Amino acid sequence: MSYSASFRVEKDLLGTLEVPADAYYGIQTLRAVHNFRLSGVPLAHYPKLVVALAMVKQAAADANHALGHLPTVKHSAISAACAQIINGRFHEQFVVDMIQGGAGTSTNMNANEVIANLALEAMGKHKGEYQYLHPNNDVNMAQSTNDAYPTAIRLGLLLGHDAQLASLDNLIQTFAAKSEEFADVLKMGRTQLQDAVPMTLGQEFRAFATTLGEDLQHYKLLVPTLLTEVNLGGTAIGTGINADPRYQQMAVARLAQISGQPLTPAADLIEATSDMGAFVLFSGMLKRTAVKLSKICNDLRLLSSGPRTGINEINLPPRQPGSSIMPGKVNPVIPEAVNQVAFEIIGNDLALTMAAEGGQLQLNVMEPLIAYKIFDSIRLLTRAMDMLREHCVVGITANVERCQMLVEQSIGLITALNPYIGYENATRIAKLALDSGRGVLELVREEGLLDEALLAEILKPVNMIAPRLAPLN
Amino acid sequence: MSYSASFRVEKDLLGTLEVPADAYYGIQTLRAVHNFRLSGVPLAHYPKLVVALAMVKQAAADANHALGHLPTVKHSAISAACAQIINGRFHEQFVVDMIQGGAGTSTNMNANEVIANLALEAMGKHKGEYQYLHPNNDVNMAQSTNDAYPTAIRLGLLLGHDAQLASLDNLIQTFAAKSEEFADVLKMGRTQLQDAVPMTLGQEFRAFATTLGEDLQHYKLLVPTLLTEVNLGGTAIGTGINADPRYQQMAVARLAQISGQPLTPAADLIEATSDMGAFVLFSGMLKRTAVKLSKICNDLRLLSSGPRTGINEINLPPRQPGSSIMPGKVNPVIPEAVNQVAFEIIGNDLALTMAAEGGQLQLNVMEPLIAYKIFDSIRLLTRAMDMLREHCVVGITANVERCQMLVEQSIGLITALNPYIGYENATRIAKLALDSGRGVLELVREEGLLDEALLAEILKPVNMIAPRLAPLN
Amino acid sequence: MSYSASFRVEKDLLGTLEVPADAYYGIQTLRAVHNFRLSGVPLAHYPKLVVALAMVKQAAADANHALGHLPTVKHSAISAACAQIINGRFHEQFVVDMIQGGAGTSTNMNANEVIANLALEAMGKHKGEYQYLHPNNDVNMAQSTNDAYPTAIRLGLLLGHDAQLASLDNLIQTFAAKSEEFADVLKMGRTQLQDAVPMTLGQEFRAFATTLGEDLQHYKLLVPTLLTEVNLGGTAIGTGINADPRYQQMAVARLAQISGQPLTPAADLIEATSDMGAFVLFSGMLKRTAVKLSKICNDLRLLSSGPRTGINEINLPPRQPGSSIMPGKVNPVIPEAVNQVAFEIIGNDLALTMAAEGGQLQLNVMEPLIAYKIFDSIRLLTRAMDMLREHCVVGITANVERCQMLVEQSIGLITALNPYIGYENATRIAKLALDSGRGVLELVREEGLLDEALLAEILKPVNMIAPRLAPLN
Amino acid sequence: MSYSASFRVEKDLLGTLEVPADAYYGIQTLRAVHNFRLSGVPLAHYPKLVVALAMVKQAAADANHALGHLPTVKHSAISAACAQIINGRFHEQFVVDMIQGGAGTSTNMNANEVIANLALEAMGKHKGEYQYLHPNNDVNMAQSTNDAYPTAIRLGLLLGHDAQLASLDNLIQTFAAKSEEFADVLKMGRTQLQDAVPMTLGQEFRAFATTLGEDLQHYKLLVPTLLTEVNLGGTAIGTGINADPRYQQMAVARLAQISGQPLTPAADLIEATSDMGAFVLFSGMLKRTAVKLSKICNDLRLLSSGPRTGINEINLPPRQPGSSIMPGKVNPVIPEAVNQVAFEIIGNDLALTMAAEGGQLQLNVMEPLIAYKIFDSIRLLTRAMDMLREHCVVGITANVERCQMLVEQSIGLITALNPYIGYENATRIAKLALDSGRGVLELVREEGLLDEALLAEILKPVNMIAPRLAPLN
Repeated sequence: MSYSASFRVEKDLLGTLEVPADAYYGIQTLRAVHNFRLSGVPLAHYPKLVVALAMVKQAAADANHALGHLPTVKHSAISAACAQIINGRFHEQFVVDMIQGGAGTSTNMNANEVIANLALEAMGKHKGEYQYLHPNNDVNMAQSTNDAYPTAIRLGLLLGHDAQLASLDNLIQTFAAKSEEFADVLKMGRTQLQDAVPMTLGQEFRAFATTLGEDLQHYKLLVPTLLTEVNLGGTAIGTGINADPRYQQMAVARLAQISGQPLTPAADLIEATSDMGAFVLFSGMLKRTAVKLSKICNDLRLLSSGPRTGINEINLPPRQPGSSIMPGKVNPVIPEAVNQVAFEIIGNDLALTMAAEGGQLQLNVMEPLIAYKIFDSIRLLTRAMDMLREHCVVGITANVERCQMLVEQSIGLITALNPYIGYENATRIAKLALDSGRGVLELVREEGLLDEALLAEILKPVNMIAPRLAPLN
Repeated sequence: MSYSASFRVEKDLLGTLEVPADAYYGIQTLRAVHNFRLSGVPLAHYPKLVVALAMVKQAAADANHALGHLPTVKHSAISAACAQIINGRFHEQFVVDMIQGGAGTSTNMNANEVIANLALEAMGKHKGEYQYLHPNNDVNMAQSTNDAYPTAIRLGLLLGHDAQLASLDNLIQTFAAKSEEFADVLKMGRTQLQDAVPMTLGQEFRAFATTLGEDLQHYKLLVPTLLTEVNLGGTAIGTGINADPRYQQMAVARLAQISGQPLTPAADLIEATSDMGAFVLFSGMLKRTAVKLSKICNDLRLLSSGPRTGINEINLPPRQPGSSIMPGKVNPVIPEAVNQVAFEIIGNDLALTMAAEGGQLQLNVMEPLIAYKIFDSIRLLTRAMDMLREHCVVGITANVERCQMLVEQSIGLITALNPYIGYENATRIAKLALDSGRGVLELVREEGLLDEALLAEILKPVNMIAPRLAPLN
Repeated sequence: MSYSASFRVEKDLLGTLEVPADAYYGIQTLRAVHNFRLSGVPLAHYPKLVVALAMVKQAAADANHALGHLPTVKHSAISAACAQIINGRFHEQFVVDMIQGGAGTSTNMNANEVIANLALEAMGKHKGEYQYLHPNNDVNMAQSTNDAYPTAIRLGLLLGHDAQLASLDNLIQTFAAKSEEFADVLKMGRTQLQDAVPMTLGQEFRAFATTLGEDLQHYKLLVPTLLTEVNLGGTAIGTGINADPRYQQMAVARLAQISGQPLTPAADLIEATSDMGAFVLFSGMLKRTAVKLSKICNDLRLLSSGPRTGINEINLPPRQPGSSIMPGKVNPVIPEAVNQVAFEIIGNDLALTMAAEGGQLQLNVMEPLIAYKIFDSIRLLTRAMDMLREHCVVGITANVERCQMLVEQSIGLITALNPYIGYENATRIAKLALDSGRGVLELVREEGLLDEALLAEILKPVNMIAPRLAPLN
Repeated sequence: MSYSASFRVEKDLLGTLEVPADAYYGIQTLRAVHNFRLSGVPLAHYPKLVVALAMVKQAAADANHALGHLPTVKHSAISAACAQIINGRFHEQFVVDMIQGGAGTSTNMNANEVIANLALEAMGKHKGEYQYLHPNNDVNMAQSTNDAYPTAIRLGLLLGHDAQLASLDNLIQTFAAKSEEFADVLKMGRTQLQDAVPMTLGQEFRAFATTLGEDLQHYKLLVPTLLTEVNLGGTAIGTGINADPRYQQMAVARLAQISGQPLTPAADLIEATSDMGAFVLFSGMLKRTAVKLSKICNDLRLLSSGPRTGINEINLPPRQPGSSIMPGKVNPVIPEAVNQVAFEIIGNDLALTMAAEGGQLQLNVMEPLIAYKIFDSIRLLTRAMDMLREHCVVGITANVERCQMLVEQSIGLITALNPYIGYENATRIAKLALDSGRGVLELVREEGLLDEALLAEILKPVNMIAPRLAPLN
């Protein structure tokens, strides 16, 4: 290693390179930066991943120190370095592109080098003086990218999961509150975009809360089984080569302590090293939530269509002028954006699925893309849910009279008469109403099919939105 | 080979097997049937593929005969066999599952064996007496699955392409005719499901014809560049090993004659053997048509929504009672089915894409799935277009008064006043109309923003559905 | 209704139609057959779905009878009809295409009509004499397609689930047995297709068993939460209109009894009517299994590549001659077919996802496609797992000497020396070995970096495939 | 409008907002920034899109000026503003997220506002003094988002297309050069990962050049038909409302001049406003290229697998140390990264497809996602092709002896004997060779099946890699 004003020279298997003097990363990170100018999204974009990497390095150092392999002076320096990163500092030093070849080696080496150089400074040394503390021999001790990297991804996802669930829960609560607010708004239900039978707007919003509530339950059920089992200690391919037999248990236990997450060691480390199943199913679950949000937003856009030539049962809060040419137009921009986020998440799921399928033998080299897409989907989903809640759902109002009017005009009322006059009679009346443009009730009365008192009872709104006693024959 | 009442014994590299006595296929086909019980869809399900296989075998036999490698007696027998298959007979003998390992070898051998046994009978021999005419040595002479199979797939697609284009063209004509029929029906246009500005229903249906017309043009542009170049003559990996140097040109020219398709020999046979790009782009084009059909059907469902609580600007012809519980309900079942076909085609495109990506070195072993999915998409698409035309589009009627009424009530009329009163004034009026429930015209009049004559001129329907001279200021 | 020798005339909302005299289905089924000539796959293709439909009809009839709405004579006749279908008879009468518009109405009516006509015969009446027992008024009593159909889909999936799990479990056991068989076969592990560090072939096969074992656990965890909650009793849109308040509980309880499945009533019937989340996640889980199987089959194909120019560590049992031109070639046809099935399942998942996203308001009209694709994926997956086990995995053998030779030649041995000679020394030796074509061990010896006894200890196979005590420094 | 030190107050339909004093964008842009915190990717990320927006505004202003609707003073100011943006300045003012609701209105308004404020300064006015020049009335004159935005997207894609084609062409040339370099390297071809027949490494690399060359041709064929037809002049929904009848022709002609692209006016403006077919097919073509690149990279990784336990026929240039634990390991990181880019592009294609399918009636509100994904795919693809060429393909070397040795050992040689000794004889010899571990040639000699001279002739390498004269019988 040699110095100049603005750079230091570092060396690896392939030769030497000039590293900027103030960079905490080193030659291997720099090579990766040169190699992969692809997405333009650096590791630093996902802080939970960076923090998780530092926690993994800390846990490994703790285990190595306890086992007598890492001297106290080095352990202290590494600990100081990791603490800074865990506290959110130096994240800008994580510069490698999220899309990278090498199965995450560049990510792992970025972490090793930044930690080594921070540690060297903590030891009173200069950056790059790896003879005192080495990125590979010391920071990466007893690890391989193949165990450190997937462990960090799982941990990073766990660290961000509470925020995702909180956004989801908030959205559920908001829909539930609206459901209460609209409990008495009678409206027509629609199937296949055709008039069906009456319901309340409250029931419609309750269904939104329910369907998302089921996702909340599924995350709580699934995520622990998917993400808490880590392969730290497997080293190169899961055989644990070069690791102390006591290391795996100690390192994982320590990582659980540091992170506050219920991590456990994988039972089959060979399998755990190459298997991407946890990410496939987690992403599949994110896709499910995206599908549900997209369906809900399609509904919100339909229900607020108009104002004069659509359904117009509800009003979304205006967020911005809707047209550069049509004055007064206000568009459902928030749900529209959620739809697009949903499509992006579904696209991410596909990219991730193909990456998972692309694994070969003892490793999946496509893991960087998997990590990228899943962190991206979570962030998009969380932001979209917050946006939908804050900028749209909380401000939705009902057009009560419009809803009422549509019920009264509807052919769908005839369904309620079905058990009394039979399917064929009811069908005939419905057809007559449609052809003539008249109301079903006046036709039923005209034909004297039911007496007025029974008719009134049957058509009472509250009797139509829930099961009730069938007619006495 | 030995006989019994009900089966004959055939032999191959792996041993012997009992083949049903009346089967024209042989041992290798039978092995494939035993191996691949997957989709349940046999080759016979796609007659154009079966015919194309026979044409390839005929062309190869012709070339081999002309080059002196295949004796006349064998050539005549093979020709008799192929002619029967080309004429639609014995297709039920093509029994192998469309999903199969072996990169199409089982399909090719199914053809070789059926043709060999038909030819043997034409020669007065018994089925299975391969010493007189052999499936591999004679029927498959100078061929490999690796050239015969992809050539047959391309040819099969070409043979079915006219029918697909005819269905598409018929649908286009039907939309165009409807466009004429509805040329004078003024209605509101909608963007983002919100009232926009007036247009005619004829313009709306014209757009359906136009967008599909662009697809028709693209098929005509693309398909010749995608499917007419064949790798027949490449044999095993495209080197043409074991083929006479004159064979490729002769066989392909002969195949072009037999099939009436403008086939040409691939310039780079190595590439042509493993490349699936033609299918990826063709399927991408099918996906594009599916997306357009799905969008059109979504529109038809929206426009016919109601009858009382939706848009209800058009009526789709009723095809079946719509509900087992709601009398009189008639649903847009035909467009709904088209939507589902579209999704299936998009799913097929993905399966095909993954299969294309899965090629390795000199071959793509996933080609059977590629063939299956593309034939399936074409058939579904063709049937869906026919269904949509016959059972839906031809019978669509307009609700002229309803369309007219929605225009008159709409806020969107204000856009036409924009150039005269300015965007901000127009915005204010639109807002006022919305808040008060009043019409925009009465508010403009009330404020005296425009004199009555100019207003009448501006709002004349015909002036709103096309560019017109801007106001004199 | 009128009769002729070969058909009877039936009537519905849209008019009359001639139904074949011997058909148990009726006019509405016939309309659907005419409308939807799409996939060519009839309901009868999925027997579990047909059985589930009959069970739903039986349960509803039982509840209606118990509540006094369905007379005993009709109940007995319906029960007789359902019993026959549940026992596998008359499935060929379920003729509607799996892809259909109308959100499953045609499927439901196909069931109603077949059951009605079977019941009529049980009552001594003729087919079509619906005045005695009516498909809608009696068989469909208190039901809507919107509750009967999704309930039948869920139940149909549950009825087939054990067979799927059994296939999965058998495959796991087979991989586990192979893992025992290969426990002592030392071989090189590979990451990124590059030589990594030693492992056993047993460990490699153990990982296959483990990764599929995790899927088995996930199915057991997920399926009960996904499929046992049914919306029977929700009728049209989940309000339960026209249903007796006591009906839902009774009908679902009865259905649980009849089917032997732990079914429970959905808490929010409005949500349960339109929500497709259960299918999205179940299909996502099927996709995960498909991804894993595809990865395993990619590995089997890599490991058996050769015989002379590939890896050739294992032999797959030959299943059929591999080439129509290359004698002696035997290909990995079974894993290749599994790959294609996996791609198909992933494509199905996409089609299903788009269908789920296409739901609108109180219903998802794309449910028929969802049902089709999920039943199709399950069948393909189950058959592919059986095929893989029977025709491939059970017969795999190891090339022990080849495995051993590759280990000895490998550069990867140097990793084991890493903790003793340091990463930089090890790197230098590895590079030297590569450049010179020599072995790493001879170079280490030449340089005297480690004494012979320690070297022998380090390189002992058993010491390299698991963690061991680190060197005493 | 009012001022303070650090912000100005602007006003729109929804009220007032404080805009940073130095911002050239205005209130509507700011609302969009507040509304859509989603991808974090601003418009400025795609400079060609920003430039295209400015060109559209310039063309519209030119046409409006020529038609007498836009005064010279305003036209000059707008021209000055557009010129700056076209020259690459003020791009950082394009701050709206690429994912946005409103069908691109926010993008269009961002352009309108930045141009208005730049123009105001050019006129000697302050930012925000819209009474002198208005973002809507003047900059957006005769336009709607619905025509300006899709026109800008198409133009932006055209502006970037040459660079994409240049990258593709460079990669093709590099593969072609390697093909020449490796013209004499004889090696085994492989099908289904099994030894097939001999070929040259030059032929293998030639196929890479050919397959990408076909894509180059397809882009040249397709892109003009897809992207040059623009809907500028259609205004709100394609009716051209509020546009001068002469405007469309003038504006599009002017835009063609300004941009140097062969733009033409769409014939059916209603259709052109909502149709996304061009993007679906262009993305389908990008997907095809991605699939091909992924297949090529899979091959490069297979061919360079080893060094000691894989195929090892070629060497990829080392780009970075391959492992944090395994010394000396160098991985194929560049192709691995290309694979991941390919998966991302395939995922983008899906997101775009769903967005295209989501269009409704006169507009596709998902167009922002479509623009985002297609610009993203192009950038990723272009960068990946450059990376692959520079960092990998140019430095590939052949292991000539290894290739030669594998040919000599191979069973596949027997195929060349097939025409001389028959398929069944050849099969038997192949089997014997495999079982005994002996070579096929020594067995043929042993059995005296062919005389030595003929054998030598047949097996001459040059005779095996192309068709040759068949044996004289």
